[in-house]
Amino acid sequence: MPTPTLEIFDNPHPNRDYDILHVAPEFTSVCPKTGQPDFGTIEILYVAGRSCVELKSLKFYLQGYRNVGVFYEDVVNRILDDLVAALNPRRMTVTGSFSPRGGMRSVITARYDAPAKRTRRGRP
Amino acid sequence: MPTPTLEIFDNPHPNRDYDILHVAPEFTSVCPKTGQPDFGTIEILYVAGRSCVELKSLKFYLQGYRNVGVFYEDVVNRILDDLVAALNPRRMTVTGSFSPRGGMRSVITARYDAPAKRTRRGRP
Amino acid sequence: MPTPTLEIFDNPHPNRDYDILHVAPEFTSVCPKTGQPDFGTIEILYVAGRSCVELKSLKFYLQGYRNVGVFYEDVVNRILDDLVAALNPRRMTVTGSFSPRGGMRSVITARYDAPAKRTRRGRP
Amino acid sequence: MPTPTLEIFDNPHPNRDYDILHVAPEFTSVCPKTGQPDFGTIEILYVAGRSCVELKSLKFYLQGYRNVGVFYEDVVNRILDDLVAALNPRRMTVTGSFSPRGGMRSVITARYDAPAKRTRRGRP
Amino acid sequence: MPTPTLEIFDNPHPNRDYDILHVAPEFTSVCPKTGQPDFGTIEILYVAGRSCVELKSLKFYLQGYRNVGVFYEDVVNRILDDLVAALNPRRMTVTGSFSPRGGMRSVITARYDAPAKRTRRGRP
Amino acid sequence: MPTPTLEIFDNPHPNRDYDILHVAPEFTSVCPKTGQPDFGTIEILYVAGRSCVELKSLKFYLQGYRNVGVFYEDVVNRILDDLVAALNPRRMTVTGSFSPRGGMRSVITARYDAPAKRTRRGRP
Amino acid sequence: MPTPTLEIFDNPHPNRDYDILHVAPEFTSVCPKTGQPDFGTIEILYVAGRSCVELKSLKFYLQGYRNVGVFYEDVVNRILDDLVAALNPRRMTVTGSFSPRGGMRSVITARYDAPAKRTRRGRP
Amino acid sequence: MPTPTLEIFDNPHPNRDYDILHVAPEFTSVCPKTGQPDFGTIEILYVAGRSCVELKSLKFYLQGYRNVGVFYEDVVNRILDDLVAALNPRRMTVTGSFSPRGGMRSVITARYDAPAKRTRRGRP
Amino acid sequence: MPTPTLEIFDNPHPNRDYDILHVAPEFTSVCPKTGQPDFGTIEILYVAGRSCVELKSLKFYLQGYRNVGVFYEDVVNRILDDLVAALNPRRMTVTGSFSPRGGMRSVITARYDAPAKRTRRGRP
Amino acid sequence: MPTPTLEIFDNPHPNRDYDILHVAPEFTSVCPKTGQPDFGTIEILYVAGRSCVELKSLKFYLQGYRNVGVFYEDVVNRILDDLVAALNPRRMTVTGSFSPRGGMRSVITARYDAPAKRTRRGRP
Repeated sequence: MPTPTLEIFDNPHPNRDYDILHVAPEFTSVCPKTGQPDFGTIEILYVAGRSCVELKSLKFYLQGYRNVGVFYEDVVNRILDDLVAALNPRRMTVTGSFSPRGGMRSVITARYDAPAKRTRRGRP
Repeated sequence: MPTPTLEIFDNPHPNRDYDILHVAPEFTSVCPKTGQPDFGTIEILYVAGRSCVELKSLKFYLQGYRNVGVFYEDVVNRILDDLVAALNPRRMTVTGSFSPRGGMRSVITARYDAPAKRTRRGRP
Repeated sequence: MPTPTLEIFDNPHPNRDYDILHVAPEFTSVCPKTGQPDFGTIEILYVAGRSCVELKSLKFYLQGYRNVGVFYEDVVNRILDDLVAALNPRRMTVTGSFSPRGGMRSVITARYDAPAKRTRRGRP
Repeated sequence: MPTPTLEIFDNPHPNRDYDILHVAPEFTSVCPKTGQPDFGTIEILYVAGRSCVELKSLKFYLQGYRNVGVFYEDVVNRILDDLVAALNPRRMTVTGSFSPRGGMRSVITARYDAPAKRTRRGRP
Repeated sequence: MPTPTLEIFDNPHPNRDYDILHVAPEFTSVCPKTGQPDFGTIEILYVAGRSCVELKSLKFYLQGYRNVGVFYEDVVNRILDDLVAALNPRRMTVTGSFSPRGGMRSVITARYDAPAKRTRRGRP
Repeated sequence: MPTPTLEIFDNPHPNRDYDILHVAPEFTSVCPKTGQPDFGTIEILYVAGRSCVELKSLKFYLQGYRNVGVFYEDVVNRILDDLVAALNPRRMTVTGSFSPRGGMRSVITARYDAPAKRTRRGRP
Repeated sequence: MPTPTLEIFDNPHPNRDYDILHVAPEFTSVCPKTGQPDFGTIEILYVAGRSCVELKSLKFYLQGYRNVGVFYEDVVNRILDDLVAALNPRRMTVTGSFSPRGGMRSVITARYDAPAKRTRRGRP
Repeated sequence: MPTPTLEIFDNPHPNRDYDILHVAPEFTSVCPKTGQPDFGTIEILYVAGRSCVELKSLKFYLQGYRNVGVFYEDVVNRILDDLVAALNPRRMTVTGSFSPRGGMRSVITARYDAPAKRTRRGRP
Repeated sequence: MPTPTLEIFDNPHPNRDYDILHVAPEFTSVCPKTGQPDFGTIEILYVAGRSCVELKSLKFYLQGYRNVGVFYEDVVNRILDDLVAALNPRRMTVTGSFSPRGGMRSVITARYDAPAKRTRRGRP
Repeated sequence: MPTPTLEIFDNPHPNRDYDILHVAPEFTSVCPKTGQPDFGTIEILYVAGRSCVELKSLKFYLQGYRNVGVFYEDVVNRILDDLVAALNPRRMTVTGSFSPRGGMRSVITARYDAPAKRTRRGRP
């Protein structure tokens, strides 16, 4: 299980809804069924509330999956859950695009919207 | 007719609507008119209900069409029907993009929406 | 004038609205002004009613324009009219993308929606 | 100032709203500040009313800017004004994509909608 | 801190809402944490009110960040703030796409809408 | 059989070996077996002797194959023979790249070198 | 084992060395170890002697491998051997580019040169 | 006729053969037959002797062709002659890639090698 | 250190020199200086002697570097050494293309030629 | 003038000629004429002798040009000279590809070969 902590810093412009996208093409984990490594790209798109995720800690967090056995459908949702818990964002989407296995490639996309106030999005 | 069974596993995050996309570029069947092989890419995009499709069984299911004579318009709808029956998803789209025949290429796209409750989509 | 007849076959899944796209990159006709050949790609996207267009007859139908003098704006609408008459689809879009003439390329897009019942589209 | 007249011809299908796109990648004018030539691509997308623009006269019209000093923001709006005056279209968009100057490239997009009746667009 | 002044000129077509996009792929600033240079592309898309930004002064303004230590999230919002203050536009979006650091690339997008009257956009 | 004559003009720089390439992506002929149209791109690369081929007559010459039944292997060699006879070049290569038929595309390349003096090539 | 016969026709220009390339992107065979289908593109480049391969029979010949268990390294050499036996070409190269298996893709390239007389190649 | 003078500066590393490439995608001249503008990209690749060409004067020199009527085959050789006369390079290649006219695009490539001493090329 | 053994099988066509290329885009190792993971693509191109490398064992061999600390320059040469020792090929090239670190990407290419007899290469 | 020292480490495989390529797309210097920043990509390809260049010090070395005024032709040769002095390689090529200025982009390529023994190159 990934143990590195996600560090945060104060959103420098908390009064404006704006999009932050981090694209990590060097994600790797392990297939829990075959023990073989999986490879993919993780994209994290969010509108910050009070906090932004610090990039270096995000890198270490994602590296924490390197030797973890986890299914595609699961890992994308877990990353979303962990980031939502750490950042409390107004909105967040996590996408995992995984390399072909058995001639098939897979893309998983999960989204979170903060419950209370409806936010205005900066770019469709 | 394809006989391999589609296996399923429990949706690990059933409380959240999220997108699952599988892209299978190695689909081949046979033209029922000419007996010649057809080639194409099948894309399956869905929001799972209680079940997700197991990837290896999906591969075998699609391979089941290898020597089956079937029209483009038919095969895409049949794949959709079979997957809906096996998974009972909240929403599903199946697309087949077929290689040129007679100088023309074809793309067929069929969609299913679960009747009762209107679901929230994770990504447009 | 093109004389080849468009052949149809029964829509194998008439109870579901789904998209059918045929892309024909080998379209050629003749400029009625200069007598010079024109080249382009014709895309036909439709939701079938009771009938689908048979691919080989569609190929012959489009080849029927090979030595016909016709303007871009006209030919795309005529193809749409002929296909609507033959198929009675729920919805259809015909696009013609023509090669540059005088340093300019042109794209013409015409659309038909069946008048009565509002159909549900499978994919935006 | 460009003097070539825009010629028109009767819209062959005036009862249907359909899109006409002309892409002219060989546009050149002169920067009014530096006297240096500018280069760009002009795209004209419109739904015709009673008239369509004749392609050769459009080419000559655009060539009329070859030695004219005009700013990016101005030339795109002027082309739109001239075409609207000549064609009286239901809807028109003119886009100019200009080559980099000082390490920056620019794209200007202006749009016209006929005031009275709301038209139906053929393709989003 | 960037000191170059943003120069403006009169919007030549103030009665029409139209889009102006400037793409500056040669942006560079300095990471405030490591002191290492960052590289990215800044895109500025706006609908002008009474004023347009003069291109050369925009180039100098962006060059003003060359030796400034500033975070991604901050610099995009500051550019937006400065341009809104100088131009008073009807609408503006600023995007910064930054080169990979630690195997991850980032894109920040911030948007401003003029408060009072709701404007009509020229292009979806 | 194509009858349009190839027109020539005097090589303006006969003392230097230099390459001339014409790329004609709008070639079409007819399959002598099936009567179906074929489509392809013809590339003509040559070092002129005393004569260059006039572009408009080359266009008409290639259009002369529009309704001619001829195999791929044959048409490329015939174009080469006709151009060599008309131009007497120092060196010439004709390439035909044809659109897929039966799921296979074909490229034919034929070359001519003037017999007597060994020429120096202008392009590595 | 593939049984379809390769048909030939007389080289229409036997006095000239010229290149013939056929690209077949719809090749499929079966992995002899796993029984799983393999997919790839076969490219055949040759200089004909007295005979050229007839395209339709080549298509059927390649389709003959559809249900044959054969390794990558073997199938490319066998195709080369069969074509050399049928055509007696002056020179031939067969390339097989196979889709990823286990995260790795493979390309096999085998070449034949007629023993006796050294031929002149038509393409640098 | 182009009158702008080509300015030169001292080759800062005259003892080493190294390649200098300038790519000018904004070249335009006039067709001497039709009076219509031509567009193309000029590439100049050379190994300097004692002199390098100053970039701004090269830009003005190429702009000098803006309203000059000249054939493709001629203009590339004239640019080469002018640059060789001004620079006395060890080796130079000039390429002009011109936009399609009548459905055909053209590329002209001319080369100069200094007569006396055989130079060593810096790039394979 | 990687311990998985490379398995081999008999070259099915030992009398012909032909190229075998395996491309493995999912290579990962660890930087011995920083402890951070590195990512890259390994390409192995060889002409077999008596033996070919078995693909699955090659995959496991490359996976053996997953948690090994090794420099780019070293790992490519070690892979080459190990494969040469296991296969005794006539010729082999190993290339490693690594993802950017500190804004720079690297490509290492090492080659082996069997000492005694000079082999003939199947592809230029 | 750049002062950061280039650090080296021992070539781990000095008995084999192999290629090392570093690609640095984030190079920036200053135009000595206009004082404006220049941007480009530096590629360094070499065959090491006893020493390899350490990547972090190479990054700092290239960053040393950030505020240095230097011409394209000069900076590429100076980088080559500095690296040759520090590494004493068997062979080295430095290429600088610079962003467009005045509508023209430039590429400079300089090469060094160690004088005495002729080396064998690892890559065709």
